[in-house]
Amino acid sequence: MPRSIIIDTDPGQDDALAILLALGSPDALEVIGITAVAGNVPLALTSRNVRVICELAGRRDITVCAGADRPLLRPLVTAEHVHGKTGLDGADLPEPTMPLDPRHGVDFIIETLMTRAAGTVTLCPLGPLTNIAMALIREPRIASRIKEIVLMGGGCFEGGNITPAAEFNIFVDPHAAKVVFGAGVPITMMSLDVTHKALTSRSRVASIKAIGSKVSDAAAGWLDFFERFDVQKYGSEGGPLHDPCVIAWLIRPELFSGRRCNVEIETVSELTMGMTVIDWWGVTERPKNAHVLGDVDADGFFALIAQAISRL
Amino acid sequence: MPRSIIIDTDPGQDDALAILLALGSPDALEVIGITAVAGNVPLALTSRNVRVICELAGRRDITVCAGADRPLLRPLVTAEHVHGKTGLDGADLPEPTMPLDPRHGVDFIIETLMTRAAGTVTLCPLGPLTNIAMALIREPRIASRIKEIVLMGGGCFEGGNITPAAEFNIFVDPHAAKVVFGAGVPITMMSLDVTHKALTSRSRVASIKAIGSKVSDAAAGWLDFFERFDVQKYGSEGGPLHDPCVIAWLIRPELFSGRRCNVEIETVSELTMGMTVIDWWGVTERPKNAHVLGDVDADGFFALIAQAISRL
Amino acid sequence: MPRSIIIDTDPGQDDALAILLALGSPDALEVIGITAVAGNVPLALTSRNVRVICELAGRRDITVCAGADRPLLRPLVTAEHVHGKTGLDGADLPEPTMPLDPRHGVDFIIETLMTRAAGTVTLCPLGPLTNIAMALIREPRIASRIKEIVLMGGGCFEGGNITPAAEFNIFVDPHAAKVVFGAGVPITMMSLDVTHKALTSRSRVASIKAIGSKVSDAAAGWLDFFERFDVQKYGSEGGPLHDPCVIAWLIRPELFSGRRCNVEIETVSELTMGMTVIDWWGVTERPKNAHVLGDVDADGFFALIAQAISRL
Amino acid sequence: MPRSIIIDTDPGQDDALAILLALGSPDALEVIGITAVAGNVPLALTSRNVRVICELAGRRDITVCAGADRPLLRPLVTAEHVHGKTGLDGADLPEPTMPLDPRHGVDFIIETLMTRAAGTVTLCPLGPLTNIAMALIREPRIASRIKEIVLMGGGCFEGGNITPAAEFNIFVDPHAAKVVFGAGVPITMMSLDVTHKALTSRSRVASIKAIGSKVSDAAAGWLDFFERFDVQKYGSEGGPLHDPCVIAWLIRPELFSGRRCNVEIETVSELTMGMTVIDWWGVTERPKNAHVLGDVDADGFFALIAQAISRL
Repeated sequence: MPRSIIIDTDPGQDDALAILLALGSPDALEVIGITAVAGNVPLALTSRNVRVICELAGRRDITVCAGADRPLLRPLVTAEHVHGKTGLDGADLPEPTMPLDPRHGVDFIIETLMTRAAGTVTLCPLGPLTNIAMALIREPRIASRIKEIVLMGGGCFEGGNITPAAEFNIFVDPHAAKVVFGAGVPITMMSLDVTHKALTSRSRVASIKAIGSKVSDAAAGWLDFFERFDVQKYGSEGGPLHDPCVIAWLIRPELFSGRRCNVEIETVSELTMGMTVIDWWGVTERPKNAHVLGDVDADGFFALIAQAISRL
Repeated sequence: MPRSIIIDTDPGQDDALAILLALGSPDALEVIGITAVAGNVPLALTSRNVRVICELAGRRDITVCAGADRPLLRPLVTAEHVHGKTGLDGADLPEPTMPLDPRHGVDFIIETLMTRAAGTVTLCPLGPLTNIAMALIREPRIASRIKEIVLMGGGCFEGGNITPAAEFNIFVDPHAAKVVFGAGVPITMMSLDVTHKALTSRSRVASIKAIGSKVSDAAAGWLDFFERFDVQKYGSEGGPLHDPCVIAWLIRPELFSGRRCNVEIETVSELTMGMTVIDWWGVTERPKNAHVLGDVDADGFFALIAQAISRL
Repeated sequence: MPRSIIIDTDPGQDDALAILLALGSPDALEVIGITAVAGNVPLALTSRNVRVICELAGRRDITVCAGADRPLLRPLVTAEHVHGKTGLDGADLPEPTMPLDPRHGVDFIIETLMTRAAGTVTLCPLGPLTNIAMALIREPRIASRIKEIVLMGGGCFEGGNITPAAEFNIFVDPHAAKVVFGAGVPITMMSLDVTHKALTSRSRVASIKAIGSKVSDAAAGWLDFFERFDVQKYGSEGGPLHDPCVIAWLIRPELFSGRRCNVEIETVSELTMGMTVIDWWGVTERPKNAHVLGDVDADGFFALIAQAISRL
Repeated sequence: MPRSIIIDTDPGQDDALAILLALGSPDALEVIGITAVAGNVPLALTSRNVRVICELAGRRDITVCAGADRPLLRPLVTAEHVHGKTGLDGADLPEPTMPLDPRHGVDFIIETLMTRAAGTVTLCPLGPLTNIAMALIREPRIASRIKEIVLMGGGCFEGGNITPAAEFNIFVDPHAAKVVFGAGVPITMMSLDVTHKALTSRSRVASIKAIGSKVSDAAAGWLDFFERFDVQKYGSEGGPLHDPCVIAWLIRPELFSGRRCNVEIETVSELTMGMTVIDWWGVTERPKNAHVLGDVDADGFFALIAQAISRL
């Protein structure tokens, strides 16, 4: 039976690939709905982009809700320098015509969790954790009903990508991350340590493009655009395909390895704000509250993506 | 035309007096609804206590909604040491039978502000600012539609009452306070500097009891119970009637004096957590974001309360 | 037998009055030496000003050492806006010719404490606590040999005078203050709560001027200059004569009242940096580490000053 | 002409190897003196251990001064779990008979810098930076006279070794580190990223032991003891030979590679206290204040050590 998930996202090209991977893996995953959050670009664009992606995948039936348009406490920081002005630069796709669901994303998350059987719904946050935190604050009873939160965020040995200490998703709303990591919900975390090992490359992008569909053309276009930033900034060989790691782990967890650790979120110091302080080596006595993944079989991961795209 | 208000509250005996003052002042105030929040006691009790008070006042028609049952980030701290186990110790009143409105308090606040004419609704938070902050985060468009937030919280020259630096309402949810004071909404703030000048006394409580109604008996019982803590702890002559100051200012602002200042909320240091750092003397260049009241005509204030109670 | 003191100071007109009070009270106080520290003005000026004051008092024999020219961690903040360009504006006095002792002020403090009998030397810091902290860090054994530290700094109910939360001396070197308040040495603290009750006035300054000596002329000139800032800034009736309170308490402690409290120093948050968090009401369980004075008989205090000046 | 250095140290087996490397490299280095500081073990032991090492090397002539016995602000944390009870467990050596120089280590550093030609003295801190910071605070003029500070401390991509975020030397006295990194002195920093690539191994220790002298026996004994902790804790192949990297870089800088970066020290948050926040990728605009080394030719490094030991 497929695993039921809600994707919470701020597309972003890598979010788009994650959504395509989920929608192209119906045997493994049931996408209950997708909630948009402000992050890579403002909410007006992320809630549009989710629908662009759903329509590209031929899934106008998906429930798409707009959620929070700002972090809990801090002013919104966006990442157009990485994702382009629309957040989805790289593919030329039509404006979506499918409507947003009228519910607030936070309400959709709460309603789904309170009406579906407890322990059956997995949350997949791919952006700042604002929606998830707001849901936990508003309806604390959901904490014990969530099967698992599988998220992209933070880093252990990789440093940060928006500041020297912090990864973008956690930095944008560190207070939300603190709420989520403190909620007692099972958490699996795709850190930069994993995602920087899931790099696009010429041949990997070419394999996707070779599928020869409308979907694969868009995906390849996005990947081309997306990798520019990292290649230029860090001299890396490709772009780190962050968000699809979340979905890939749900489908084929054996591609990944990691360990259970304590993870605390820095919310006090501006210098280290939003850092995920991960006790990888167990030097503290703090409780292990997250499964932190650190490595991935990148070839298997890209094969999974190509396979899913070929199905759409 | 009476001023339209939503009272957000965590009763608390002084909250109860504030609600009675509002309900007993129909010429001046229209109470659109009352939202409960966790604070002095947990939400289950505060949402019950609001209805106890409404029924005492013969106002089963008031919309009462339960809101947040926890602060945004920090664990809930309560004040049974001041207010007793129920939050309303001191009067023996029946369990309420009027129902809670099914809406979440945060939704009620947002819906009211988005449907009533902009600039016509005043918010009166008497407890931690969790509900108000959640409303501002969830629907930022309300910020420009709120006429004013008139709140009880913080202190300038009086130090704190829950820690040496912090007043209880702000301490319980400092992050919510930071959101509210940073939202650009007009704020009037009843600090401990005012409320410690609005002390109960034998003759003031006697005046209320002398009204001789069911309502005045309950009010006098609450005041008797409530003043014990401060009289014993601080050796003061009575209990500081914090929350009714908010309502009294709406009815007779000439009883109060203060000045416009910058107010910032401490959320970084545990030592000073929840402190309202008020630039009373203008030693910084920070913008004036609140009207901070510092003095009150206590006799006029208690006369107003007695008058309202005598009307119920 | 007079009490033996080392005055650590950053003159400043009020420091000057404190030094004159000490030198004019030989029955009560033996001034072992005076150490200068950067504070109201830079070290080059404070170490000069101490000698100006000693020469005015006819005491070229006093050991004067220069100490720290910067706070432990933070950049030096000075207060020429209060004290004028020289720190001693208001009296026209000759450049001093008495030499500085070649020893560093910190060394002088340590040597004195390690060679005099334990428990016989009182330290009187009138400025930032840098020298005292450096001495305690460099030679921890002095902690148990200091009779008492009687200092001017901090505030309880008065707020700050350099920021809304912090008094100048503590703000300039909060880390030093943290070292001092954590050292386990008996501390008596003259807060702004006291010193704002020790205001200059026309008649008090006139009484000093009426003494008719070179010393009293200078003292009156300093007081005239010094009070301008507070009168203009706060609309107060005179200038708060901070530092002489330290010396006056040593001579006539019965002029003052206060209580033993816990005092912690804020060093984490920029908003409240340098605040002395004083648990006046005992709301925490933290140990009482300081005797905090809060009130003074201002007339008796000024009489004491006039008497001392008349003796010089 | 050899480079003139002062070694500031808290031995520690790896400190001992660093000192031996320096003393065994007279063509490259003139050791002006060695100052001890509290760190791996308390000052009484580190100041003893320095003399144990000097006597082992036949250098009773070296000036050895004791410095600070505590960090600037925080309580001392030691590392007997790594270094054993004496700090030098692993070799059985006689109690030293050479005396400590009577000067405080901080005074020795200042006197040396103020009397030698400006720009000719390099400081080599191998432990917490307390002595160096105290010297800079006490005599700011030394900042422009120091040729360079070459230190072991911090980490970039390696996380911490005493907390998840902090390396031991910086953690023990983060405030001192903040003073040093902010002093405007040229800094070269051997981070955990380098030192974790300079691992002992069976063959490397055997090469040293094979030298067959009293010095090499002691060195091999220390290395055997020292590597236990890391091998057991982290499953690494050997012990990271931290401190000798500082000395090796002075002798053969071509063995190392790194880049100039901004380095800031976390002193605000307990969670990340003492972290060296290194902007390796240049994601901020902060000025480059340190040369951060990240890689080492480990074979060349161990050959250098063996060569120096064979000379003693």
